[in-house]
Amino acid sequence: MEIRTDLALEATAMHKETEGVESRFEEKDGIRIDRIKISGKEASQRVGKPCGNYITITVRDLSDNDTEDYEAVCMCVAEELKKILNIEEKASVLAIGLGNEHITADSIGPKCVKNLLVTRHIKEMMPEEIDESVRSVSALAPSVMAFTGIETSEIVRGVAEKTKPDLIIAVDALASRSMSRLGKTIQIADTGINPGSGVGNNRRELSEATLGVKVIAIGVPMVVDALTVALDAMDATGATEDEKRVFFETYRRMEPTGGDMVVTPKDVDSLSDQSARIIANGINLALQSALGREDIDRYNQV
Amino acid sequence: MEIRTDLALEATAMHKETEGVESRFEEKDGIRIDRIKISGKEASQRVGKPCGNYITITVRDLSDNDTEDYEAVCMCVAEELKKILNIEEKASVLAIGLGNEHITADSIGPKCVKNLLVTRHIKEMMPEEIDESVRSVSALAPSVMAFTGIETSEIVRGVAEKTKPDLIIAVDALASRSMSRLGKTIQIADTGINPGSGVGNNRRELSEATLGVKVIAIGVPMVVDALTVALDAMDATGATEDEKRVFFETYRRMEPTGGDMVVTPKDVDSLSDQSARIIANGINLALQSALGREDIDRYNQV
Amino acid sequence: MEIRTDLALEATAMHKETEGVESRFEEKDGIRIDRIKISGKEASQRVGKPCGNYITITVRDLSDNDTEDYEAVCMCVAEELKKILNIEEKASVLAIGLGNEHITADSIGPKCVKNLLVTRHIKEMMPEEIDESVRSVSALAPSVMAFTGIETSEIVRGVAEKTKPDLIIAVDALASRSMSRLGKTIQIADTGINPGSGVGNNRRELSEATLGVKVIAIGVPMVVDALTVALDAMDATGATEDEKRVFFETYRRMEPTGGDMVVTPKDVDSLSDQSARIIANGINLALQSALGREDIDRYNQV
Amino acid sequence: MEIRTDLALEATAMHKETEGVESRFEEKDGIRIDRIKISGKEASQRVGKPCGNYITITVRDLSDNDTEDYEAVCMCVAEELKKILNIEEKASVLAIGLGNEHITADSIGPKCVKNLLVTRHIKEMMPEEIDESVRSVSALAPSVMAFTGIETSEIVRGVAEKTKPDLIIAVDALASRSMSRLGKTIQIADTGINPGSGVGNNRRELSEATLGVKVIAIGVPMVVDALTVALDAMDATGATEDEKRVFFETYRRMEPTGGDMVVTPKDVDSLSDQSARIIANGINLALQSALGREDIDRYNQV
Repeated sequence: MEIRTDLALEATAMHKETEGVESRFEEKDGIRIDRIKISGKEASQRVGKPCGNYITITVRDLSDNDTEDYEAVCMCVAEELKKILNIEEKASVLAIGLGNEHITADSIGPKCVKNLLVTRHIKEMMPEEIDESVRSVSALAPSVMAFTGIETSEIVRGVAEKTKPDLIIAVDALASRSMSRLGKTIQIADTGINPGSGVGNNRRELSEATLGVKVIAIGVPMVVDALTVALDAMDATGATEDEKRVFFETYRRMEPTGGDMVVTPKDVDSLSDQSARIIANGINLALQSALGREDIDRYNQV
Repeated sequence: MEIRTDLALEATAMHKETEGVESRFEEKDGIRIDRIKISGKEASQRVGKPCGNYITITVRDLSDNDTEDYEAVCMCVAEELKKILNIEEKASVLAIGLGNEHITADSIGPKCVKNLLVTRHIKEMMPEEIDESVRSVSALAPSVMAFTGIETSEIVRGVAEKTKPDLIIAVDALASRSMSRLGKTIQIADTGINPGSGVGNNRRELSEATLGVKVIAIGVPMVVDALTVALDAMDATGATEDEKRVFFETYRRMEPTGGDMVVTPKDVDSLSDQSARIIANGINLALQSALGREDIDRYNQV
Repeated sequence: MEIRTDLALEATAMHKETEGVESRFEEKDGIRIDRIKISGKEASQRVGKPCGNYITITVRDLSDNDTEDYEAVCMCVAEELKKILNIEEKASVLAIGLGNEHITADSIGPKCVKNLLVTRHIKEMMPEEIDESVRSVSALAPSVMAFTGIETSEIVRGVAEKTKPDLIIAVDALASRSMSRLGKTIQIADTGINPGSGVGNNRRELSEATLGVKVIAIGVPMVVDALTVALDAMDATGATEDEKRVFFETYRRMEPTGGDMVVTPKDVDSLSDQSARIIANGINLALQSALGREDIDRYNQV
Repeated sequence: MEIRTDLALEATAMHKETEGVESRFEEKDGIRIDRIKISGKEASQRVGKPCGNYITITVRDLSDNDTEDYEAVCMCVAEELKKILNIEEKASVLAIGLGNEHITADSIGPKCVKNLLVTRHIKEMMPEEIDESVRSVSALAPSVMAFTGIETSEIVRGVAEKTKPDLIIAVDALASRSMSRLGKTIQIADTGINPGSGVGNNRRELSEATLGVKVIAIGVPMVVDALTVALDAMDATGATEDEKRVFFETYRRMEPTGGDMVVTPKDVDSLSDQSARIIANGINLALQSALGREDIDRYNQV
């Protein structure tokens, strides 16, 4: 009766005492940062997440238009990325914008990579045109299998083999277990990503194991499984575990809607736009040491 | 504890025996057509829908790619529109594509009007270039208030006063009470439309009362209120009306998510694309007497 | 043998000594500002432009990514707009984004209005949510006649009559006479706009005469008539006026290409994106007195 | 003083008598088909095109909305593709949509692949869901180097190595030497493609030599170099070769506009939309033997 969550913070909520799950948090300027570390095969299996570090940034409202708050969260993402990237000044980066740009709730990845400062071609072909300190960054929005007929991971693998980046950053929309997290949370992980998740489906994984270089994943929860609302409602009325299980089974069998429905906020367009901007700014600032707070939004596309 | 539905078929479900509510249906080639007529103030108030005729076309799957089924539903929409339009050969039509094109689930209206055969400017400026039998059709996608700062109805009223169409067709994404209707239903009504609905909010209404010409509304349910899933779950476990009411109150107060969440199918992009195509074909065929089944998809934009 | 130009700076180039044509310029921080005033019917007819004030801002390169230059041109547009707008603090503004968003070279208007701070609906419906000093701004991208079947001016007139703005700002892509101006020039005029121009076609004009309120036009040249290159070439080789006239006649008769070809820069996408951003920033800063240089790009959409 | 053309028909115009250049044509139903074969290194160098077969389909107007003409050209593209593809029933195909979707004149490739029937993932993962006779087709729109930082050919090579198609079809917008060809011509070649062309730039080539599988290129001329108009004008007035050369040199040095300007038709949006649809239909019909004239436009996306 598990409902999918891409957030380690949620997945570990019931396993805080488990050996191999460490978590701590700090708070500053209205931003909360949770740091979770999962280590050891047993902890990983119990939690259902790969071993590694997960950073969760929680803010009051990602769509907030207040300049100071907006810049603070951009800077915070940049800071956390810098720490987790931990790469040499000359290391090259390939950014991947996962997801379907035609579905608003799934469009963060493609929207984000549009706003990145892409430099690899200039560094390779016209190195004299660009300051030596600028890092080599390339970007790809590989679309989704329904349009390409190709597993996204195959596309990424193919491109990575040709371009040999030192590190990959993958940006994606996430699924949360809780509606109250939508629009408030950014997760950064050094574990790579498994689009659509699912155990044992190695082919779809974007990780150091499959790509040969470290993969940093960064995402924002945009949907929750529709089932969540149902189970929350049943909890609220004191339903037993058995009653919930019966409903769960029924729901999953409902055709064609049961397992294929997601809950999104009504203002999903501004939330996905704003999230994509924040992450793009965070990546640009983290990758290019010459950029600072005054360069926020400088590379936005209309 | 009412959950919003834009479908008369759902709104009247519990009022079938009410005086002033007539309903009948027919079935042909796998397509079911329900015809509901609401007459009299009392029936209208009880059901919560304006007086008039509502036609609900139900198919197995609007996203279905089978050519025969697809053409059958296009032809069916055209036939039903022709009957309910009931206009002279020379009457001019203004089509309005309501909704926010940047939210996939809300984009049917704008997508649909792109695929209409627009002729008004040719008839007015180069009448010799076009067959006399071609009807004058204009089209407008007025966007949404968050982008324009203007009530959509004000924009439509302003344009209608200048262009003086004999009839208006408004295309919109609808909210249903039931997940099982998403992707299966098209509703046509001769009552006009009240975007966002709400009682007594006359300003926002697109209807003969506010625009001075008959307004035909055509829409496809694309979302259900997230609360639906919760109440369905509670029903499934035999919750009492009181328990449901308590949950309902709590849910509506939840901030910021309670009333601002919607459920959509995961493949909302192909569903909205296909629905927009079907309705556009239906309108083109209904308005231009020279077009037939062989002209389906002829005016699609890429 | 006139080639169309929307720039008063070009149209007046050969009429500088004409009575009724005043021009002066200044230069600051690498930005040149030409101020042309056309007064009197005779001067207007000779130049082929309505009476009024025309401000031409010339920069080295609008696509330039240098932060300082970019902000300087945004601030310059804002300053010039403020002066020419000359409106009360409480005056309301309707911004119109003219053009076809599906043609890159014609998309500045629609792209620009997306990035405006739109406030009218908040001021009207939730005045307590917004600072009193915020100006009421609404925005409309009326698309083009090929899609709507309606003259753009009719749509604007209809909406203006309903919403009664105190002033209209119209943003559009312009045609220049010279390739060397593409990507370097912004024109602001207090004369309104005549999309597609043409003498005596009053219906299409957006001006105080047709709309009842002052219309400020702001645009960027994005295309030149393909004929320009030909005539320049003939000049270069010392062709006589007669030879040029013969070619001109032949060219205009060429079917279907003669008069329907335009020249654009290869990087028309980044030029139109950047121009739209600059103008949007200029308008936002000019209309909202509380905004300053630090708010540049704050309202960009992804 | 060569002006770039991607059309073999134009490149061979002055070399018809050259050994190694064969050409013949046929005409049917208002469609003309030119077949050019270039063989031998010498002919190839003189013409400036790789050895191979070039088919040029010329119609009255690609934007024409007449159903019969439209279907005829779709069927013609399908027939010619079938002949030149010459592949086994089970051979798999990867379609590449080259170009920048944000520049209307360069958007044919990305627009075209959206409308392809993509089947590879279904055949690989759910073979039981799909008729055995359906061919495996995948599709990729690799964007352009300015956005990715990666040579398009590197992306294609990487993906082709992972997915191992038996054949590649590359769709692209072309440059013509003559304005009168815009909107009237489709070229199919079995030589692969060299985006941006240029001699000796092997890295950018998409061909059997670089990808290991046959590459069929299909394109539509959408732009001509702005210089064309100038040289045509000089010809018209009897300028000498020397005069033309002087102008040519001057023009190429003009900054920043000289070599960076292209001529496009004003209705470039409908031309690129319609061209993309025709090519997509041609590819779908050529690749899937079960499809016929009645399936034209069946896979269009809105």
